[in-house]
Amino acid sequence: MLDFFVQMISCLNQDFCDTIIKTRNLKNTMMKKKLTVAAYLVDRLRALGVTDYFGVPGDFNFNMITAIEEDKETKWVGCCNELNAGYAADGYARIKGIGAVVTTMGVGELSAVNAVAGSYAENVPVIKIVGTPALSVQNAKVPIHHTLGNGDYGVYQRMYAEVTAANAFITQENAVEEIDRVIETVMTKKLPGYINLPADVCLMKIEAPEGTAFHHEYDKNNLKDAVSAIAKQIQQAENPVIVADYKVLRFGLKEQLQAFIEQSNLPATTLVMGKGAIDEKHPNFIGTYNGELINPDTKNIVESSDLIIAIGCLLNDTNSAAFSVKRDKSKTINIQDDFTEVFRARYENVPMADLLVELTNSVTKSTRELPVVVNKQADFFPKGTDPMTYDYLLQQLEGTFEAGDTIMVETGTVMMGASSWKLPSNVEFHNQGLWMSIGYATPATLGAGMAAPNNRLFLITGEGSHQLTAQEISNMYRNGLKPIIIVIDNKGYTIERYLCDDPFDAFNEIACWNYEMLPEAMGIDDAYVRNVYTVEEFDTALKQAVKSDRFSYITVQIEEMDAPNVMKVIRSKREQVYNH
Amino acid sequence: MLDFFVQMISCLNQDFCDTIIKTRNLKNTMMKKKLTVAAYLVDRLRALGVTDYFGVPGDFNFNMITAIEEDKETKWVGCCNELNAGYAADGYARIKGIGAVVTTMGVGELSAVNAVAGSYAENVPVIKIVGTPALSVQNAKVPIHHTLGNGDYGVYQRMYAEVTAANAFITQENAVEEIDRVIETVMTKKLPGYINLPADVCLMKIEAPEGTAFHHEYDKNNLKDAVSAIAKQIQQAENPVIVADYKVLRFGLKEQLQAFIEQSNLPATTLVMGKGAIDEKHPNFIGTYNGELINPDTKNIVESSDLIIAIGCLLNDTNSAAFSVKRDKSKTINIQDDFTEVFRARYENVPMADLLVELTNSVTKSTRELPVVVNKQADFFPKGTDPMTYDYLLQQLEGTFEAGDTIMVETGTVMMGASSWKLPSNVEFHNQGLWMSIGYATPATLGAGMAAPNNRLFLITGEGSHQLTAQEISNMYRNGLKPIIIVIDNKGYTIERYLCDDPFDAFNEIACWNYEMLPEAMGIDDAYVRNVYTVEEFDTALKQAVKSDRFSYITVQIEEMDAPNVMKVIRSKREQVYNH
Repeated sequence: MLDFFVQMISCLNQDFCDTIIKTRNLKNTMMKKKLTVAAYLVDRLRALGVTDYFGVPGDFNFNMITAIEEDKETKWVGCCNELNAGYAADGYARIKGIGAVVTTMGVGELSAVNAVAGSYAENVPVIKIVGTPALSVQNAKVPIHHTLGNGDYGVYQRMYAEVTAANAFITQENAVEEIDRVIETVMTKKLPGYINLPADVCLMKIEAPEGTAFHHEYDKNNLKDAVSAIAKQIQQAENPVIVADYKVLRFGLKEQLQAFIEQSNLPATTLVMGKGAIDEKHPNFIGTYNGELINPDTKNIVESSDLIIAIGCLLNDTNSAAFSVKRDKSKTINIQDDFTEVFRARYENVPMADLLVELTNSVTKSTRELPVVVNKQADFFPKGTDPMTYDYLLQQLEGTFEAGDTIMVETGTVMMGASSWKLPSNVEFHNQGLWMSIGYATPATLGAGMAAPNNRLFLITGEGSHQLTAQEISNMYRNGLKPIIIVIDNKGYTIERYLCDDPFDAFNEIACWNYEMLPEAMGIDDAYVRNVYTVEEFDTALKQAVKSDRFSYITVQIEEMDAPNVMKVIRSKREQVYNH
Repeated sequence: MLDFFVQMISCLNQDFCDTIIKTRNLKNTMMKKKLTVAAYLVDRLRALGVTDYFGVPGDFNFNMITAIEEDKETKWVGCCNELNAGYAADGYARIKGIGAVVTTMGVGELSAVNAVAGSYAENVPVIKIVGTPALSVQNAKVPIHHTLGNGDYGVYQRMYAEVTAANAFITQENAVEEIDRVIETVMTKKLPGYINLPADVCLMKIEAPEGTAFHHEYDKNNLKDAVSAIAKQIQQAENPVIVADYKVLRFGLKEQLQAFIEQSNLPATTLVMGKGAIDEKHPNFIGTYNGELINPDTKNIVESSDLIIAIGCLLNDTNSAAFSVKRDKSKTINIQDDFTEVFRARYENVPMADLLVELTNSVTKSTRELPVVVNKQADFFPKGTDPMTYDYLLQQLEGTFEAGDTIMVETGTVMMGASSWKLPSNVEFHNQGLWMSIGYATPATLGAGMAAPNNRLFLITGEGSHQLTAQEISNMYRNGLKPIIIVIDNKGYTIERYLCDDPFDAFNEIACWNYEMLPEAMGIDDAYVRNVYTVEEFDTALKQAVKSDRFSYITVQIEEMDAPNVMKVIRSKREQVYNH
C-alpha cells in the first residue's frame, strides 16, 4: 500500500546529491474509516471536485452507480449513450480539473473509447470507470454477454491501455493502492485513467485513509537554473513575446500565467488550442496567433521577435496553421508541463506550475512599449433582410459574450472562425484542437454546464457535427441547464467541402433535418427555438435567447460554401500537408 | 504474393499422408488489370456482394470514398456517426454475407470499434476500412490532428487487433496480397478484418488479378469419420433432436440445415441467437429453446432427448437462459464452424458446411412420429380501449410478419419477448444475442434495409435503446427505405429495472422524448407516424403502417414495468449469475 504520510525528501543542494523534491498533500492522514470499495472511489474523487458522474447504466455497473447516488454530494448524470457520456466527462474535466465516466463492460466502454482517446490527446484528466462481472465469473472465464464469447476478460482493458496513462483492475486487496495510483497519475499528468471495477468488489469493505494524497515532484536545482536562464534571456532580448497554449488550461495555470504576463509586461498571445488561457481584453494580449491564417499583426509581432517564450505549446497541424508556425530552437524557450528547454538546453523534472511562479518572482518588468494590434474588420456588413453570413454570425456572437460565460465550440469551420475572436476576461472557452472529433461539442456542453452551472452556457456547432450526438440536448434540459445553442446549418460537411477535391461531392451531403423541431421532439417543451435566415431574424433571436433565461436553440441557415475566410487559405494548403 | 491459381493438394488416403484439402475458387486467374489500390479493394468486395459502404467522410478517407463512388455498382451510404455506420455494416453483413464500414483515422475508427467488436463477438464478417494520412506523414511521425499528438500512428490498429481476425497496413507493394489475406480471413472465419489505407496509397496503381480467390480447407478423412460417427449415433438413438444456433446464419447454411432436417426428419429447434436459422412453420420445428424461460414443451423434448445434435451453438448466459441450458458431452454432437465433437471425440478441420452436406447424404430418414408442441396462449387479451400491453404487442406483431420480411429486434426486453415468436418461413430475423449492445438495432436496420431493399423491413426497439442511435432513421429515409419502426416507450431502461436491486432507482430513468415528433425533426416529411396508448389505436396503426407503403414510425406507450413474462424468471436468476 502507498504510504500516505506527508513525505519530504529534501537533500542539501550539492551537485552529487539528489535534488528531487517529493511532497504529498494529505489531510487527516492518521484517520481510517471502513467503507465499500465503490464508496472509497466516490470519496476520493469527490475530494478532488467530482460531484457529477456521466454514463449509462448496465448490469455490471449498478453497484458503482448506487454508490454515487448514495453519496449526498454526488450526482449520477445519465447520458443518451456512452460516447456522449465520455465527451461530457471531458467537457466537465476541462473546467473542474477532473471528470469521470462510468459504463458497463465491453459495449459501453468501447462506445466511450473515442472520447477517452480525445481526453488523452488533449491532456484532459478523465477517470474511466467500468463495471465488470463478479470476480468468480471473470476468473472462470464464463462466456457471458458483453464478452467476445471467448472467455477473455482482459481485452478491453488492453485496448484502453493504449489511450490512458494508468490502468487498474480493482480487488479488495489492492483497492486503496490502485485507486490512488490511477487518480494520482491522472492528476499529475492530466491524462485519462482506467479503473476496472468488478460488481462484487464494489460492495466489499475496506479500511481506507481519509483525505487525498497527491504526489508532487520536481528537481529543485534544475528549476532554479532554468528560471535564471530564462530571466537572463528575457533581460537581454530586444522584443520577447509570450506564446501560451492549451497546457496552461489543462494544468490549471491561467492565474499563474496572467501573473507572469503582468509582472514581465511582455506582449502575449496563444495558439488556437490555448485560446482562453489569457485574458484577451488585457492590454498585453496581441490577438490569437495562427500563422498566416488570422491576425497579420500578431503574426508579425511573433515572427519578428528575437525570443519566443512558449508555454505549454503543441505544434500540430491544426494548431499551427498547417505547420506554418515554425519553432526555431535558437530563439525559443519551450516550457512544457514537466520539462523546460532554453534554446537547446533541456531541464528535466521542472513542472510548469513551479516554473511560472518562480519566473514571475525573478523577471523584471519590461518598460518597452506594447505593440499595437489592429483588428481587421469585415469589409461587408449585411443587414436587415440580407441573408445571414458566417462572418456576421461570428461577429455578433463575439459581441454577445461576457465575463463568466462558458463557450463550447465545435471543431470544423466554427473553430476556425472562432479563433479570431477576442474574448472577454474570465471565460471558459473550450474546443478540441488536436483530436477534432466531430460531434464532441454538443455532449461536452452538457459536461461543461454541470461543471459551472452558474455560467451562461453557449454551444456553437455546425449541423453536420451536431447530427452525431444531438440527442444529448435532452439531458442538458433534464438537468436544468439553459444553454444557448447555435446550430449553423450550411447543408453538409462544409469543412470537408473545403478540404476535398470536389466540394460538391455527394459524400459531403447529409440528411436534411428540421432542427427547429428537435428540442420538442427530445422532450424540451419550453425551449426558445428559432430558425433564422436573415440578419435581423438572427439579431432578434440572439437577443431574445440571451434575455429569455430559457433553453435556447437557434438554427442559422447559411449558404453551403459560406465559411470563415481562414478556410480559403486552408484549402490552398491541404494538398501540401496530407496527401503528398 | 499469394498464388491465385486454383490449387488442389489432394493426397492419397493413407494414414501417414496429409489429408488436408485446399482449394481456391477463382475466375479469370490469368487476367491482370491495372487499377488503383482503392479501386482494387472496391473490386474485390463488390465481387463478394458489397454494393453499399457505410461510414462518415473525413479528410483521410476521401480517396477511398471517391473510389466507391466511381464504381458504378457500389454506393456510399453516409451515416450520422461512425458507431451507427458500424452497426449498419453489421446488419448488412448478416444478410449479404459481408459488409464494410469506412471511417477516418482515430476519431472515426474508435467511434466504430464497439460495433466491430460486436461483429467479432457474433461472427459477422465486416471489413473495417480506415483512411489514414499519406505514408510520408506517418513515417515522419508528424503530430497531426486525429493523432494522440505523440507521433504513434500504430495505436488504433493495435487496438483493433484485439477485435478483428486479420489486420493489414496497405502499401503499394503489399496491396494485393494483404487485401486478399484480410478478405479471405474475414470470409472463411466470418469475423471482422481491419484495413489501414493511407490516402496516397489509395491512388497508387497496381497490377491486380481479376476475380476473387478464396481458400477452402478441410480434412477429408476427419470429415468422413465424423459424418459416419454422427450418422451411426442418429441411427442408434431413441429420440434425437437438432438444436441449431447463430453460426448457421453467419456461415450462410440455412438451406443446408433445412435439407438436413428434411432428410433426417428429426425434430429441430434453435437457441435464441439462432432464431431464423430454421423455417419455423416447418412441421419439424418444435419452438425456440431457451431452457425454462419459454416454451415448456420444447424444453421437455430437448432435455429428455438421448442425442442432441448441436449445430453452431454458443452457450453464453443470455443464449442459454442463464446457463440453465446445459451441455452434456456424453449425449451431444457439437458441430462447430471448423471442428466437430462426437461426444468426447474431436474432429479438427471439419467445416460445418461440408459436414452438413455430407451428413444429409448419409443420414436415413427417421420414421418416428414428430413430437407435439402446444403454443401457450396468453391468458388475457386486452381489447378496444384497454391500455396496450407488451404481450399483446408481441402477439400482434407475430401475426403480422410474412415470408420475405426482414425483422430487426433490439436487445433488452424486446429480444426476450421475441424469442417466443413462431416466425414465417424465409424471413431475415436478426438480433445481438451475445454482444447485446443497446442501440444496435436502429442503425442495423439501415444496413439490413440496404442489403435486402425488397423485403418489408421491421424494427422493434425499446425507447431507451433507441435514444442511443435514433438519428439513423434519417438515413433510412434518405436512402429510400420504408421501415415499419415500433418504439416501445416504457419510460426508461425496463430490462435494467428487472435486473437491478431497486427497479425504481433513478438511474434507470431517461429523458422523456416526444417520439412522434422525431421523424419530422429528422427530415422525414411524409412518414406515417402514430403514438398509441390503447389496443385499438395500436391495431389501427399497425394495419395502416403495413398498408401505407410509407416510412412508418409507431410509438407504443406501455406501463414502465410491463415486460414479457420471461423477464420475471430472469429477475429471479440474476443474483446467482452475475454478482456472486
